Amino acid sequence: MAASEESLRKALAEKQSAVEAHGNAVRALKAAKASKPEIDAAIEALNSLKLEKSSIEKQLQAAVSGSDGDGALSREAFRQAAVNTLERRLFYIPSFKIYRGVAGLYDYGPPGCAVKSNVLAFWRQHFVLEENMLEVDCPCVTPEVVLKASGHVDKFTDLMVKDEKTGTCYRADHLLKDFCNEKLQKDLTISAEKAAELKHVLATLDDLSAEALGAKIKEYGITAPDTKNPLSDPYPFNLMFQTSIGPSGLSPGYMRPETAQGIFVNFKDLYYYNGNKLPFAAAQIGQAFRNEVLKSVFESGKISPRQGLLRVREFTLAEIEHFVDPEDKSHPKYSEVVDLEFLMFPREEQMSGQSAKKIRLGDAVSKGTVNNETLGYFIGRVYLFLTRLGIDKDRLRFRQHLANEMAHYAADCWDAEIECSYGWIECVGIADRSAYDLRAHSEHHVKNVFDEGQREGNIDFIGTNLDKSGVPLVAAEKFSEPREVEKLVIAPVKKELGLAFKGSQKNVVEALEAMNEKEALEMKAALESKGEVEFYVCTLGKNVPIKKNMVSISKEKKKEHQRVFTPSVIEPSFGIGRIIYCLFEHSFYTRPSKAGDEQLNVFRFPPLVAPIKCTVFPLVQNQQYEDVAKVISKSLTTAGISHKIDITGTSIGKRYARTDELGVPFAITVDSTKDVTIRERDSKLQVRVSVEEAALVVKSVTDGLRTWEDVWEKYPHHTSGSADD
Amino acid sequence: MAASEESLRKALAEKQSAVEAHGNAVRALKAAKASKPEIDAAIEALNSLKLEKSSIEKQLQAAVSGSDGDGALSREAFRQAAVNTLERRLFYIPSFKIYRGVAGLYDYGPPGCAVKSNVLAFWRQHFVLEENMLEVDCPCVTPEVVLKASGHVDKFTDLMVKDEKTGTCYRADHLLKDFCNEKLQKDLTISAEKAAELKHVLATLDDLSAEALGAKIKEYGITAPDTKNPLSDPYPFNLMFQTSIGPSGLSPGYMRPETAQGIFVNFKDLYYYNGNKLPFAAAQIGQAFRNEVLKSVFESGKISPRQGLLRVREFTLAEIEHFVDPEDKSHPKYSEVVDLEFLMFPREEQMSGQSAKKIRLGDAVSKGTVNNETLGYFIGRVYLFLTRLGIDKDRLRFRQHLANEMAHYAADCWDAEIECSYGWIECVGIADRSAYDLRAHSEHHVKNVFDEGQREGNIDFIGTNLDKSGVPLVAAEKFSEPREVEKLVIAPVKKELGLAFKGSQKNVVEALEAMNEKEALEMKAALESKGEVEFYVCTLGKNVPIKKNMVSISKEKKKEHQRVFTPSVIEPSFGIGRIIYCLFEHSFYTRPSKAGDEQLNVFRFPPLVAPIKCTVFPLVQNQQYEDVAKVISKSLTTAGISHKIDITGTSIGKRYARTDELGVPFAITVDSTKDVTIRERDSKLQVRVSVEEAALVVKSVTDGLRTWEDVWEKYPHHTSGSADD
Repeated sequence: MAASEESLRKALAEKQSAVEAHGNAVRALKAAKASKPEIDAAIEALNSLKLEKSSIEKQLQAAVSGSDGDGALSREAFRQAAVNTLERRLFYIPSFKIYRGVAGLYDYGPPGCAVKSNVLAFWRQHFVLEENMLEVDCPCVTPEVVLKASGHVDKFTDLMVKDEKTGTCYRADHLLKDFCNEKLQKDLTISAEKAAELKHVLATLDDLSAEALGAKIKEYGITAPDTKNPLSDPYPFNLMFQTSIGPSGLSPGYMRPETAQGIFVNFKDLYYYNGNKLPFAAAQIGQAFRNEVLKSVFESGKISPRQGLLRVREFTLAEIEHFVDPEDKSHPKYSEVVDLEFLMFPREEQMSGQSAKKIRLGDAVSKGTVNNETLGYFIGRVYLFLTRLGIDKDRLRFRQHLANEMAHYAADCWDAEIECSYGWIECVGIADRSAYDLRAHSEHHVKNVFDEGQREGNIDFIGTNLDKSGVPLVAAEKFSEPREVEKLVIAPVKKELGLAFKGSQKNVVEALEAMNEKEALEMKAALESKGEVEFYVCTLGKNVPIKKNMVSISKEKKKEHQRVFTPSVIEPSFGIGRIIYCLFEHSFYTRPSKAGDEQLNVFRFPPLVAPIKCTVFPLVQNQQYEDVAKVISKSLTTAGISHKIDITGTSIGKRYARTDELGVPFAITVDSTKDVTIRERDSKLQVRVSVEEAALVVKSVTDGLRTWEDVWEKYPHHTSGSADD
Repeated sequence: MAASEESLRKALAEKQSAVEAHGNAVRALKAAKASKPEIDAAIEALNSLKLEKSSIEKQLQAAVSGSDGDGALSREAFRQAAVNTLERRLFYIPSFKIYRGVAGLYDYGPPGCAVKSNVLAFWRQHFVLEENMLEVDCPCVTPEVVLKASGHVDKFTDLMVKDEKTGTCYRADHLLKDFCNEKLQKDLTISAEKAAELKHVLATLDDLSAEALGAKIKEYGITAPDTKNPLSDPYPFNLMFQTSIGPSGLSPGYMRPETAQGIFVNFKDLYYYNGNKLPFAAAQIGQAFRNEVLKSVFESGKISPRQGLLRVREFTLAEIEHFVDPEDKSHPKYSEVVDLEFLMFPREEQMSGQSAKKIRLGDAVSKGTVNNETLGYFIGRVYLFLTRLGIDKDRLRFRQHLANEMAHYAADCWDAEIECSYGWIECVGIADRSAYDLRAHSEHHVKNVFDEGQREGNIDFIGTNLDKSGVPLVAAEKFSEPREVEKLVIAPVKKELGLAFKGSQKNVVEALEAMNEKEALEMKAALESKGEVEFYVCTLGKNVPIKKNMVSISKEKKKEHQRVFTPSVIEPSFGIGRIIYCLFEHSFYTRPSKAGDEQLNVFRFPPLVAPIKCTVFPLVQNQQYEDVAKVISKSLTTAGISHKIDITGTSIGKRYARTDELGVPFAITVDSTKDVTIRERDSKLQVRVSVEEAALVVKSVTDGLRTWEDVWEKYPHHTSGSADD
């Protein structure tokens, strides 16, 4: 497609010059007073050229605006219908609305809140319970030292530019991205070369340094979108909400940007709790906070098309950290998912411009497309989780990260992406993060805390002894019988080093001890031959001379009783809010009212996630029926079925419409004191059930013990056409 | 008791002087060389006086140290046993332990986390579902304007003093409290008058102003406890964690100190969602944050006796806001709780030094001890909630707030207090807050936002129109037919006022319109008699002369179709963490091991809250039994019963002990391929059940469909004495 676009640009350019040339020709003829038929012929030719040109323009327009402009429009319309319903029925409320709200913060209203807790309850059942995971619950307030070790304090930043007059902030990459897209889509005159350049910029946007970004912004003359003022150079802005712990003001803290760190710092205790056995998984559900840079995403409190509900500043994460021996990433239950087949989008397909395709999970793993069994197992479990919630499997794909998307330490990364009106949205990340996180928090960093020292005597921190907190976060494999291994021993001779390097002795010792086997053996050889070597000490930033008497390097045979290692972490991380929003879009549809005069909104939630499982209506206002309705309501409550009773006089059709709009799967209508009808939302089919059974029938279906089809089989059908069709 | 203490102090003082007098007498006799028997008699008398004195000292000691010093000791020992178990089995983990932790922050480890989610699930069932409450889920990050209106920015503070040398901060009231208690308990020589004074200080501690606190601290010469350095004057410290929303740095925000405000600002939408009908209740479960001033509450990572788990900086709140017509606070389901009888501690009993006593809820309400039916209903529901969780009803009391504890606007307040080793702990607050909160957020405050103006052009705030957000948070009662009412009409004549007051016209107009009926009628009369009055305008801070032609005040008859009013709010607010901690203490006990050589720990959790419902053990290591165990495990998982399978070789007794320590109510032991035994934790009784039935039997009991007694009735008993007794 890129190719066709390129050729179109070329064609357009040629046609343009042809038109100009021919235009001149016509003018020349007129100037030369040529014969009328001659001139008319020339003009006709010119017009046909112009027609050809404009047709090429149209094709190009279509090519750049993502094939179908109409599709975009209908997506927009669909979203508006869905979002209007979501807002009107209080699935969402812009937070602090009466105070004009805050961009990127939303409340879940009653039905939204119910859906959320149903999704989380199922997550617990599907992952924590099914896998016997160790669930923990850690605070959001996190001291700086933890997020320093994890790298968030230094690296969790966006590059910003400021409007130099108003001080308004923008994300540098967004401005550059908008500029490139705008040029590509609106300006048809740019050369194929220019187009290619802009596309390259878009493709490499994430890799650009602050300098490179700043340069491009200057080069393209990009200014502040709202004011056209000049922009500052890009500078990093940390996305964490900062705060201060305790009254002293000496203990900086942040609101956690993810829940994972709380698990990592507890690894030692959790490993012990699990009987010092691997593999095991820990899980956490909780709030996470990212102080996103958002343009004002509201127009008069309406949820805006600019990914309003997907780019938020506070959200619920559900994260799993599965700890596994890096030398054995098999999974005992792998066989349960091996035959699943669904849309996968491996790196190669992305690079070669193909699209996602159906792949059998087992094949992806055996071919090595997916790095290992455990990673594959979780990909399969995530697929089952999302589809059981009601996510459309044809609009769900697992996309592998490209090399430049992945952290250097990661072994492999896949995102579960769900297609909604905003495009493909990353909703779950499934990453093999190797040993990075545990290493980041192990001994070395704890030492740092003490070296910094600044927290000493700070009443907001606990004073425990160094040894205790210094223990590295590792696991051990006990050998059935001890094994003999050859170990490298580097023994710096502190006395000699002290004499030679005085104050910097410590740095030299550490550098010597930090040598890997290869380096050490080279030094050993060099010392034996030359007696002295130049040795680079990074913490001193210079070479120092090391003499033979300053260090002894040897290989010794040792009996070992266990293998100590840092476990690998495989992390499925769920953005619950994004999953729920996509679920709303996938569940939403409209159908004509009985009279056909209006479109009615319906959410086809499976009972599992429906905010309310059932409504109870007396067919007409009548004390007897109301009493029956109350009896049924009471038995629904005891059965733990969330429901609503509606004794308003409104027509039964209207009442059905109201509850369809909330995605309530079943409605019990009381039209006698013995039997009642149960109506299913999507099929609108109704069965007759005795008053006594009603609650239990609904419970059995909502608990998934049987399907509506079973019920339809078993009970007499209610044919006297329900009021709504 | 206070009385007896006072008389003891008097007696001690008298005895002291008697001893001194007699001592002098003895010396005198010696000096006068009196006869030996004479002197001996005098000395004997002196010694008996001294004995009497020391016995009075003992009594006084006992009286001041809360009657029984031994009781305190045993409480301490009990807590250590419980807390050690809680920590060792990871119910709790000090947060960020490997980094030496942060005072006032704790993680829930796996079993603690399971208990917590069970408690919350039951809360949803017992309150939200049972009462059809509207649950919402709002963000923790809250813009300043909201908490300004609620009063938290200005009033949610503690008075602090700083060590003038080290800068360490202390709560001023705590230092004064510690000082008074110390004096009263340790210094027996202080006079009854002094003792009375110190007690008065303790009683009125909460009402003391910064000045008064500072004065007392100076008067008593209190210094920094750690350094004995002088202390600064008391200053207010706001307990909210502050942060900044968005990159501009112009939008101050806080982590919410309670969840209630999120509900109040949504009142209008929720009222509409409820069909514009009162009463209705909204509910929210979520994290709340209070930057408490804590002494370092850890010794080497141990949870300290200083209320470690009860005074925390981040905690889960579950709050209900029940909105009701102030003129009708009856409750439809009141009759369901009216006959409940439990410990109540009304204001009068507290003032008159009596203790809590059993009262029938219905009587407390009808006598007016409890302000209204709805408040009474929730007190009853809270009692049922807590006792069903496993809180001991004899260590649960409802204490009414004293006048000086209650906010001026509150109609009535009761705290559910649970007694644990720390004493009586407030775990649930049930308050009738009248119309305060909704008023605080209504129109007027929104206007302020705009007057402040400082947020204009701030991209992090939404720009909606004034009218929309200005709507006051009120409800309306439609009249069946219009009613005629007499209304006061105050009509300032802007033209005249403008001429007279120029720029301050606006202030005068607002002040005139703000007059209540009484003020307005007085002015009307005064204007008619004198033609001019002095009128105080608070926003100008001075009197202004108002002439007859500047305002028209009249009473007009009007037909009204509805009554518009601000609903009252009745707020039950649950500190989930405190409830859980007290539940742990009430559930904990020890019993001797089979051999009687050690004490074993048990948590007697009801199945409802038990972290794991069931364990599955093969009696001996044996492939057949393991397979059966796995089959049962699978059926437990499908039944949604959280359980653990333990195929370690350890003795069955040890395995029982391990699970008793986690409060697991049932253990299935596989000792054949057809039948298995089910063992109940507390009675240690066992029944034999077929492999097929096992999971269902456990499910039926944990779901509360039947009791263990029913099971004991129905199934054959396993008598061959289980390994652990």
